[in-house]
Amino acid sequence: MTTLKRSGLAPSQFPKIPRVCGLEFKALRAGIKYAGRDDLLLARLDKGTTVAGVFTQSTTASAPVQWSREVVTKGKARALLVNSGNANTFTGPKGHTDVKSTAAMAAKAVGCQASEVLIASTGVIGEPLPIDRIDRALKRISNKTRPASWLRAAHAIGTTDTYPKGAFRQTKIGETDITIGGIAKGSGMIAPDMATMLAFVFTDACISRTVLDDILREGVQASFNSITVDSDTSTSDSLILAATGRAGNRVPKTKNVPDLKLFRGALKDLLIELATQVVRDGEGAQKFITVDVCGASSTASAKKAALAIANSPLVKTAIAGEDANWGRVVMAVGKSGAPLNQKMLSVAMGGVTIAQAGGRVEDYDEKLVATHLKGQEVGIEVNLGVGRSKARVWTCDFTHDYITINAEYRT
Amino acid sequence: MTTLKRSGLAPSQFPKIPRVCGLEFKALRAGIKYAGRDDLLLARLDKGTTVAGVFTQSTTASAPVQWSREVVTKGKARALLVNSGNANTFTGPKGHTDVKSTAAMAAKAVGCQASEVLIASTGVIGEPLPIDRIDRALKRISNKTRPASWLRAAHAIGTTDTYPKGAFRQTKIGETDITIGGIAKGSGMIAPDMATMLAFVFTDACISRTVLDDILREGVQASFNSITVDSDTSTSDSLILAATGRAGNRVPKTKNVPDLKLFRGALKDLLIELATQVVRDGEGAQKFITVDVCGASSTASAKKAALAIANSPLVKTAIAGEDANWGRVVMAVGKSGAPLNQKMLSVAMGGVTIAQAGGRVEDYDEKLVATHLKGQEVGIEVNLGVGRSKARVWTCDFTHDYITINAEYRT
Repeated sequence: MTTLKRSGLAPSQFPKIPRVCGLEFKALRAGIKYAGRDDLLLARLDKGTTVAGVFTQSTTASAPVQWSREVVTKGKARALLVNSGNANTFTGPKGHTDVKSTAAMAAKAVGCQASEVLIASTGVIGEPLPIDRIDRALKRISNKTRPASWLRAAHAIGTTDTYPKGAFRQTKIGETDITIGGIAKGSGMIAPDMATMLAFVFTDACISRTVLDDILREGVQASFNSITVDSDTSTSDSLILAATGRAGNRVPKTKNVPDLKLFRGALKDLLIELATQVVRDGEGAQKFITVDVCGASSTASAKKAALAIANSPLVKTAIAGEDANWGRVVMAVGKSGAPLNQKMLSVAMGGVTIAQAGGRVEDYDEKLVATHLKGQEVGIEVNLGVGRSKARVWTCDFTHDYITINAEYRT
Repeated sequence: MTTLKRSGLAPSQFPKIPRVCGLEFKALRAGIKYAGRDDLLLARLDKGTTVAGVFTQSTTASAPVQWSREVVTKGKARALLVNSGNANTFTGPKGHTDVKSTAAMAAKAVGCQASEVLIASTGVIGEPLPIDRIDRALKRISNKTRPASWLRAAHAIGTTDTYPKGAFRQTKIGETDITIGGIAKGSGMIAPDMATMLAFVFTDACISRTVLDDILREGVQASFNSITVDSDTSTSDSLILAATGRAGNRVPKTKNVPDLKLFRGALKDLLIELATQVVRDGEGAQKFITVDVCGASSTASAKKAALAIANSPLVKTAIAGEDANWGRVVMAVGKSGAPLNQKMLSVAMGGVTIAQAGGRVEDYDEKLVATHLKGQEVGIEVNLGVGRSKARVWTCDFTHDYITINAEYRT
């Protein structure tokens, strides 16, 4: 990670994530772009590990994304190799050759097939990947190389992140104790469907690849597909869920079996925790904003309205200025195209209704709203007045630091 | 207008717009929000004036927009009343009553029906319109009130604009000399379909309302619907075209008659000039950016890709930082969903090809690009490599001043 000041919205500390049986990290200094820090992470996964993944919808998806999509289709993996500092995106045919080569290098280090290695890269777009450095780093691994902790693994995958991101849950499948642990990176170019965002979640549960895929897709909707920092969608987004099977639980046949209820809830919670940690590290963020839209005609239109608010530069700068400019919220809802009844529309901030029935509430408590906006956690609530569907999305404010970080990123 | 520093991208001076026969402006100090400046504009139009208009697509469109849409449907108007400082948006039933009242006031001042008065308001959302002040100002008009110049009219409609906006063309319909003159306002909340943007264009041509409407819709696509400042769509956008008929030309039966060819071209040019003046006054803008997308499978997808580039905060901050970060252009095109062939995709800046055939051009002239980016006028050119359609849109960079202006607008 860079030496940027730790976000004021960061959690107080990195969680004490327990060991997930069947998973081992190695963190390495390959010198891909950054010096004097780990920038390469190798995760070794036990034989029999099933995997699922969701990836960026971008039509200019990176070479590693294209590779990992293939691996996930087969549903099995023995290793994950992640580098920071270089996205290996828009690197022409060489980009694809490089992914293949690094997969072979990681396979050799782990003792598996190249086709069983997931690859993820983030960083600068358009620069060739220095694969010789990755090769040298992987060859330095020996029996004496100590496994890396979750914290060290989270550090190794960071780029402009100001703090390492991790979360865990302990749950049950049937009678069996299950652990889920995950790390993530990302702070800009964050928007559904998804972001310059990598997240790797591991569990010792024994779950078939098809059920794993179903559970992951369910969990991602309310978490990583409900966050936005700047409306920009990365070419590298990857969310991987790997299940080593070492817990030895009874294998669930579908995602809907009663045995899996707790696990599904725990995974969804963990994904939300990781996703909101990414938003809390939004470039230049000083406020964490939760947008709730209800009264919508469908979940899709509720989310559309919520994202229009969360992506509006005018709303985000108003919140940065601690200004209860609810008119901009009305504007954003209006441009979203989500069906609404202007005569029933209401807008609240921090639970205080500021506008309803198509106009301002004359005597709303301005002081209460002002106090709310001075805090780090801001809520915007909108009722569209046409139905019963709702959605929640998370974002951050738009500050001078966002401009500073992004106008000077490469220089 | 406020006392903000004049944009460095502004034209050197306001043009010397000739008189349009059948049109007269009065500019008034109503004290709606601003003190010591004109904030109310009344345009008197000769009997027989035809009108056409296009308005915001927002579902939270303002009361004046809803009113003027009705007037335009009839295609005839005798007056236009514009106030700055208050948008009369989301003001409940009172908002609609207020529009009706002000239309009646203007009708009295001009000597026509209220239903023949177009109304436009921009400024703060959600505050009730002080119609008594508008009433008092209109009642002060007498025979001694001098008509306002184009420049004064342009000043009166401004809000956060840093300079008055105007343009004109002199053309012909058949053998008859025709004048077209227009003014506009707007500098933030600018995106298709349209912006916090008002534009009023007047001509002495004699054109039926249906033909006028056809011509306006044609012209708006390549002008006001091709600009974006911050991707936010206002609740007040209105573009009005009024034809007084005083030139006495032969009346064109359709927009496609040869007689109208020059006029259509002149109008389109004028609309582009006004629209790009709005972008040049984009809040905090220091660079004027022209985005050209070609090689698209359709005009719609070319425009989609161009707008994704023009709206990307990461692209706009990179340009602000004079950084040839073409990777962010690739990202933006990728997220747009426009069909493309990654192996044929090329990106150029200022005419210098930086990436092509899916990868960076190894020996492109970085110095030339750097020099181009140091200038005030920046070009981004993308070839999607799948077809022959193209589109051009205009935007500006994203700077610290945008944040400053918008985080402090109401405070």
